[in-house]
Amino acid sequence: MTDFRKQALDYHAYPTPGKISIELTKPAATSKDLALAYSPGVAEPVRAIAENPDDVYKYTAKGNMVAVISNGTAILGLGNLGPMASKPVMEGKALLFKRFAGLDSIDIEVTHRTTQDFINTVANIADSFGGVNLEDIKAPECFEIEQALIERCDVPIFHDDQHGTAIVTAAGLLNALEIQGKELRKAQIVCLGAGAAAIACMELLIKCGAQREHIYMLDSKGVIHTRREDLNEYKALFANNTDKRTLAEVITEADVFVGVSGPNLLPPDALKLMAAKPIVFACSNPDPEIKPELAVAVRDDLIMATGRSDYPNQVNNVLCFPFIFRGALDVRARAINDEMKLAAVEAIRQLAKEPVPTAVLEAAGVDKLEFGPDYIIPKPLDPRLRTRVSKAVAEAAIASGAARIKLPKNYMQE
Amino acid sequence: MTDFRKQALDYHAYPTPGKISIELTKPAATSKDLALAYSPGVAEPVRAIAENPDDVYKYTAKGNMVAVISNGTAILGLGNLGPMASKPVMEGKALLFKRFAGLDSIDIEVTHRTTQDFINTVANIADSFGGVNLEDIKAPECFEIEQALIERCDVPIFHDDQHGTAIVTAAGLLNALEIQGKELRKAQIVCLGAGAAAIACMELLIKCGAQREHIYMLDSKGVIHTRREDLNEYKALFANNTDKRTLAEVITEADVFVGVSGPNLLPPDALKLMAAKPIVFACSNPDPEIKPELAVAVRDDLIMATGRSDYPNQVNNVLCFPFIFRGALDVRARAINDEMKLAAVEAIRQLAKEPVPTAVLEAAGVDKLEFGPDYIIPKPLDPRLRTRVSKAVAEAAIASGAARIKLPKNYMQE
Repeated sequence: MTDFRKQALDYHAYPTPGKISIELTKPAATSKDLALAYSPGVAEPVRAIAENPDDVYKYTAKGNMVAVISNGTAILGLGNLGPMASKPVMEGKALLFKRFAGLDSIDIEVTHRTTQDFINTVANIADSFGGVNLEDIKAPECFEIEQALIERCDVPIFHDDQHGTAIVTAAGLLNALEIQGKELRKAQIVCLGAGAAAIACMELLIKCGAQREHIYMLDSKGVIHTRREDLNEYKALFANNTDKRTLAEVITEADVFVGVSGPNLLPPDALKLMAAKPIVFACSNPDPEIKPELAVAVRDDLIMATGRSDYPNQVNNVLCFPFIFRGALDVRARAINDEMKLAAVEAIRQLAKEPVPTAVLEAAGVDKLEFGPDYIIPKPLDPRLRTRVSKAVAEAAIASGAARIKLPKNYMQE
Repeated sequence: MTDFRKQALDYHAYPTPGKISIELTKPAATSKDLALAYSPGVAEPVRAIAENPDDVYKYTAKGNMVAVISNGTAILGLGNLGPMASKPVMEGKALLFKRFAGLDSIDIEVTHRTTQDFINTVANIADSFGGVNLEDIKAPECFEIEQALIERCDVPIFHDDQHGTAIVTAAGLLNALEIQGKELRKAQIVCLGAGAAAIACMELLIKCGAQREHIYMLDSKGVIHTRREDLNEYKALFANNTDKRTLAEVITEADVFVGVSGPNLLPPDALKLMAAKPIVFACSNPDPEIKPELAVAVRDDLIMATGRSDYPNQVNNVLCFPFIFRGALDVRARAINDEMKLAAVEAIRQLAKEPVPTAVLEAAGVDKLEFGPDYIIPKPLDPRLRTRVSKAVAEAAIASGAARIKLPKNYMQE
């Protein structure tokens, strides 16, 4: 076993198994404490909530609690290993929610028969929480699941593998386009991969101004085009009316490559075919579609991003999901709608243009970070993400009518 | 609003809403920490669990985590107020699990259509936890729900309103019978109430040696007898082949009265009719079936217990449920079976016969506690409950084949 593998297993096993615990936020030492916390005192908030349902936010932990829910059908890049094997990832997500946004978060792994069974289970428990983060659910079922839950539930439902990835990708890509002097609505885009993240990324880029007919999406069988008869309804939305059939054909003169597929699937020779000043987001993790050193060797006019922390421009969902939930929960949003997602894109994007505090440079282990080809997205440990993204999302929730309450006074002042 | 009501509401509302939070048990400050907690390090425990399902206990918080699940159909004595109104109680239960047994516990409130829908929802999420505590679910559905979940789930399912109450009642009652010089198998028993707790109490007493034909159960329509045609299948088990129809008739010469019904339903005149040295458990809360001061005024040969902390002999589920789960989870029990329940009865019972440490006297605010009519059950704040009951339950789980692992070394040494 490598050192890192052992360290990772030990981290999870010792001193206690797992990464999260439940703690009490109220005194519970004496009989008097317990008479307030439980019988007979607890009858008071029960009656209050029965009379006024919104009081559940006043007297319980619901308003700060996010459920991280999976069925383990698409765990990281490891595939369908079942609900129990997904548990360390879901607990990890709960850890990130707490670490970055101060949100309480609990993981729930669902064993189910049909997709409808999964939907029904999550819908039945969703009200226990301020919001539900869906995670590691395979496509195309994840689309149906998310849509059905959004319709049934009165709390935000957010499939992070889709929208977290899409929001951070869009933020980085918009900045990269700006630096390269290109316009999104004119950009020719190749998307290698047609899973949950790929489809969500492209849908969000379209909402940001990209033209659907400029997008060439490829799955394992090649270009997704209008003559294909093997497409599910989600891929079908990206069927391009084109005669091009190969990656080499569609990438020729393309401005943007987005890879959410697998390691080393973008050959350097294909990269050579792209338009001047190309943008390559090679997000397969841990091994990108093309190694950055190989990419820059063939194209010195490139802006490149990956999913890795050891290269510049890391596309990392943690820039988004803790804060989109923070903002949503702080105004008791009923949903996380497009307006809120776009507000998150804009807030992340703008933050990359600001001077970087010394503490962030130190945490990132670099001397300098300045908006440009090697710094198009903020660093995950930038504490300003919390204030900026959460506030932008909360304000968008209010403006779009998704919020149940106004912004708290002095909300997220830095 | 009374002072106590205001205190109870304030306790729940400030400084943060609710009573529990999620905390991290592992470091999460640096990029290196996060690389172990989440991607890429988290892939290691994922792979380990996929290969060996039992590793979920090694690398995740499952083994110390109890879900407290309700649908809010029978909240305390307040009735069916719905899932959201039950949330303060369920969080309170989570608080008690942590406070008394160090178990992490999260509340989940289920919105559902049919009983089968509830069962299916809980079964689908049960594997996320080391065990499931069902709470405040109305009878008779609670019996069907518990039975179905026990059959479907591979972790302990325990409806505390039934079995927690039954275990503590049986422990106290066996001690009271011993003090009064009576035998359970000969005792004539009146049970006022025919809900979940009543039925579970009587079933457990039968397992301890009581004779079914000596039990007279009463519901709101009077004595449950074999000519009644309005009985559900659970009450029908207690249909007595008798001509007696009223409380006054069945309580005449009875040895034991167990009340799990409502306030002031046992008239002092009825108490006068009981056999010599009667035992009265008036467990309706907060107002018992008969006030202790009224009861002792008419019967000075009485042993009495209530659900209240301000009288001697409080029948309080907290004597049992934290520790029955502690013991069950510590040996990764598949269920909480009768052997484990009876072991808990015996452990609680025996503890009442031991000398009481000064700290317990101080916490209880009394000078002396000695096994006898005014001390038949241990006090809730007695720290020995944790070691004694948990150990007895864990050992019974092993002996009965419910345990997946052996007892940890030096388990629960005091």
